[in-house]
Amino acid sequence: MKVAAYRFAGERHVGQVLAGDRQIAPFALTLQEAQEGVASLIGRRTADLETLSPVDIADVEIEAPFPRPARNIFCVGKNYRAHAKEFTDSGFDSSAAQGEVPPFPIVFSKVPECVVASDAAVVIDPAVSAAIDYEAELAVIIGAGGRGIRAADAMQHVWGYTIINDVTARDLQGRYSQWLLGKSQDTFCPMGPFAVTADEIDIGDTTVQCYVNGELRQDANTCDLIFDIPTLIETISAGVTLQPGDIIATGTPAGVGIGFKPPKYLRDGDVVRIDISGIGSLENRFVERRS
Amino acid sequence: MKVAAYRFAGERHVGQVLAGDRQIAPFALTLQEAQEGVASLIGRRTADLETLSPVDIADVEIEAPFPRPARNIFCVGKNYRAHAKEFTDSGFDSSAAQGEVPPFPIVFSKVPECVVASDAAVVIDPAVSAAIDYEAELAVIIGAGGRGIRAADAMQHVWGYTIINDVTARDLQGRYSQWLLGKSQDTFCPMGPFAVTADEIDIGDTTVQCYVNGELRQDANTCDLIFDIPTLIETISAGVTLQPGDIIATGTPAGVGIGFKPPKYLRDGDVVRIDISGIGSLENRFVERRS
Repeated sequence: MKVAAYRFAGERHVGQVLAGDRQIAPFALTLQEAQEGVASLIGRRTADLETLSPVDIADVEIEAPFPRPARNIFCVGKNYRAHAKEFTDSGFDSSAAQGEVPPFPIVFSKVPECVVASDAAVVIDPAVSAAIDYEAELAVIIGAGGRGIRAADAMQHVWGYTIINDVTARDLQGRYSQWLLGKSQDTFCPMGPFAVTADEIDIGDTTVQCYVNGELRQDANTCDLIFDIPTLIETISAGVTLQPGDIIATGTPAGVGIGFKPPKYLRDGDVVRIDISGIGSLENRFVERRS
Repeated sequence: MKVAAYRFAGERHVGQVLAGDRQIAPFALTLQEAQEGVASLIGRRTADLETLSPVDIADVEIEAPFPRPARNIFCVGKNYRAHAKEFTDSGFDSSAAQGEVPPFPIVFSKVPECVVASDAAVVIDPAVSAAIDYEAELAVIIGAGGRGIRAADAMQHVWGYTIINDVTARDLQGRYSQWLLGKSQDTFCPMGPFAVTADEIDIGDTTVQCYVNGELRQDANTCDLIFDIPTLIETISAGVTLQPGDIIATGTPAGVGIGFKPPKYLRDGDVVRIDISGIGSLENRFVERRS
């Protein structure tokens, strides 16, 4: 099932995306439930979800599937080999002492308030960063939480997937050594436009592509993840209890701006589009803040 | 004003601590407001807070001032010189390439669900970590949020302070390069027992002391912070909008377990007590998990 959070006639809704992404049918939720976005569906049996009359998707305002996640988003660094090399070579990598390919997953976070929807502006603030970069990523949505989840059981804890652009201020990422600030700048987490349940895509064969102003920059397949989704869930949950609705961005492939010489940082007016097969296209314009 | 979140007769309350910490007078809050702990007081004028009849503090169960912060807790690494040296020397420091004293604040986070109260058990899970360490820290509570807060204005955004033990699994901190997992293990954020409003303590002259089984291990003064509180608020808020109720743990002084040769990691039954002048004593027993 493909779903989205959206606004229609001034109210928040969550609905099922239908008819080749042209229509959306709202689930019968209370107003309060609908505030939570796709989180309101987690823990319910899909069969129990009643939908109301569909509307044209062109008539609604799509929001991020999780407009405000319940806690920081878990993110994974250097999880495709070619990207691990380009990032280590860039000189911004505080984990470089461990070598090009990390021996264990590198897990950091983004604050929940930096989430924005597809089509929303991502703000370039030249007073804060001169090195803003894109990172196309498949994101896992946790359904059943838990601690000590073994890799063999991990896929039973996956509710579904969405797309995240793990936007990064490379200068801040390097300057502060820990990546939280460089990753959490306001508007730095475009998410969506849709979420899909786990049965919708084959996670061993899903393409992740990223275009900047129509130019293909990243083109990979999730089968190339260094640490696969079961390993990530096992690693995080070993001592940190995962919660329903937790989001894990699985890392970005080669082709980010920092990988070019000279680097191709994002500029005012640039449009970044991320296509993930089976989910959709997340597109955002980067807009310079004028003070 | 000194305040605490607590349970009494099965209900959550928030109250003013009185009579030399022997009594607590509940604020007149709704049940729903009281669920948020001290966060329910932020944004209200202290003078508007009506208190009801006090009860003996011995008769209540003190909770953490923020039983579940609204997002991950901001934490600062290597923010006292002597600790920066002991940590860099330990071999677990992925930021060591920047030198002993960091040129900029190192900011990372702990998940909100790892918060526990004073007197609660902190779990040592030998299946996950063999190197669990204490870190006594003064934590800042943000009142008015904002972006681009200048250091000169920053103290106007401080609601108050509390105590945090930034418990750390040193092996995980080193293994994963980014510190989120090593810092966020379940129960790894003892907080409290009290919070105080900003007027209660002189942040330029506040002692932070930590005892393990009664032995003084850490003994410093907040005047020795490398990056002071205004600088931390300016740094984080430059591009990340601070929210009311955000918590910033300001870093730990020298004397953590990793600083000894051989390291003095915490063991089953150890009791860690943190005293911060003007706030109180946060005390927790470390208990080994038996599976």
